[in-house]
Amino acid sequence: MQIRVYYEDTDIGGVVYHSNYLNFCERARSQLFFDAGRSPILSGGHFVAKHIEADYLKSAKFGEVLEVKTTLLQIKNASFRLLQEIFRGDEKVFEMKIDLVYLDFGGNMSKIPPEEKAFLSSL
Amino acid sequence: MQIRVYYEDTDIGGVVYHSNYLNFCERARSQLFFDAGRSPILSGGHFVAKHIEADYLKSAKFGEVLEVKTTLLQIKNASFRLLQEIFRGDEKVFEMKIDLVYLDFGGNMSKIPPEEKAFLSSL
Amino acid sequence: MQIRVYYEDTDIGGVVYHSNYLNFCERARSQLFFDAGRSPILSGGHFVAKHIEADYLKSAKFGEVLEVKTTLLQIKNASFRLLQEIFRGDEKVFEMKIDLVYLDFGGNMSKIPPEEKAFLSSL
Amino acid sequence: MQIRVYYEDTDIGGVVYHSNYLNFCERARSQLFFDAGRSPILSGGHFVAKHIEADYLKSAKFGEVLEVKTTLLQIKNASFRLLQEIFRGDEKVFEMKIDLVYLDFGGNMSKIPPEEKAFLSSL
Repeated sequence: MQIRVYYEDTDIGGVVYHSNYLNFCERARSQLFFDAGRSPILSGGHFVAKHIEADYLKSAKFGEVLEVKTTLLQIKNASFRLLQEIFRGDEKVFEMKIDLVYLDFGGNMSKIPPEEKAFLSSL
Repeated sequence: MQIRVYYEDTDIGGVVYHSNYLNFCERARSQLFFDAGRSPILSGGHFVAKHIEADYLKSAKFGEVLEVKTTLLQIKNASFRLLQEIFRGDEKVFEMKIDLVYLDFGGNMSKIPPEEKAFLSSL
Repeated sequence: MQIRVYYEDTDIGGVVYHSNYLNFCERARSQLFFDAGRSPILSGGHFVAKHIEADYLKSAKFGEVLEVKTTLLQIKNASFRLLQEIFRGDEKVFEMKIDLVYLDFGGNMSKIPPEEKAFLSSL
Repeated sequence: MQIRVYYEDTDIGGVVYHSNYLNFCERARSQLFFDAGRSPILSGGHFVAKHIEADYLKSAKFGEVLEVKTTLLQIKNASFRLLQEIFRGDEKVFEMKIDLVYLDFGGNMSKIPPEEKAFLSSL
């Protein structure tokens, strides 16, 4: 998934504000669902971030086009772990590992529905 | 209501990103409710922006402390109009007039409940 | 320019947060420059918002794909006025008129360079 | 440092959008400088995030008042590590460890100036 850096993504330092890389990764996760004709919001619940380990390698700048690559590292009954890397051309500027858990709309951790588990496993 | 300008509010131009002044005004509107022990989200609906006229007078900068002043201009059965001005000391940096309408949770325009109408009229 | 609505664009009301429509329009303005192999940040200055009149017509929702259409209404020596409309399919959800002025990096209003004026006039 | 959760901080899930906890922590870091009559932007450079490990423990909601506590874990010549915890009353909702490095305005890692090192060490 390609993402252009606009004014709103930068700060006074002239580069992308640090938390916006997490937003870029979230867009890429949602887009995986949209590209498959699905929504990341299921009929019974949705996925929320539980743990993140992020490394800032380079600074992305206004106007640049970035690419987010998403890889499934592990999937369990109620959670999964992704590696998400952001590239500017061949150069990696950011990477994070994120654990997401499936919560029903009451906020309780719950088993990922089989169809979504199959979809996530195929990534 | 006082608002400090942080990194997230600025962009590569070194000043506050233009749409963030609207966010500052929204914080001030919600805070009017919170300060009165109320919530801007009512049991039957909430208020949404319908029309905005905004003037950018000066650029607010990182680290500055701004003050938002909110004045009721007009209230009708299902909507009201506010003047919101943002100051840096004595200097006005931004002002907008905003029309807000009351929508029930089905998204239909609806009469503002009497208690909230009285509260808004007292501003 | 097409824009997908992601989680970050929504709020607890379940629809796009009101100031994010301004961000979408800003992306579209910058993208006009990028598409022409240009940058909205010139060697001697850049464009900043001076006045906005915005109408919220419908609520855009998570996952929807919106289209921003930008039309030049007027151009003067140091400023120009655009109409920017956001559509969901055939339905207009938002429109605004925005006046932008050209500021040099000292923050002073300045004549738009001839090449950029020609570019803007061609929109 | 106390932070109120406003509309802009929430998403369609009805709780604070995951990357906004990082923004709250950044506000708290900058505020440490402001409270001491300083700025986080020094004459020769500034601090940027290098590595983050974040745990999402509870969901913060619209209207809640959160408190950010910041503790220095380690300081080296050109970097330091903080623990930042966000509480809602007695309940911890988020925590992260963040490594920040000092970059000069050319973008090169550089020694933290002695006065700022002393200030950071006093936290």
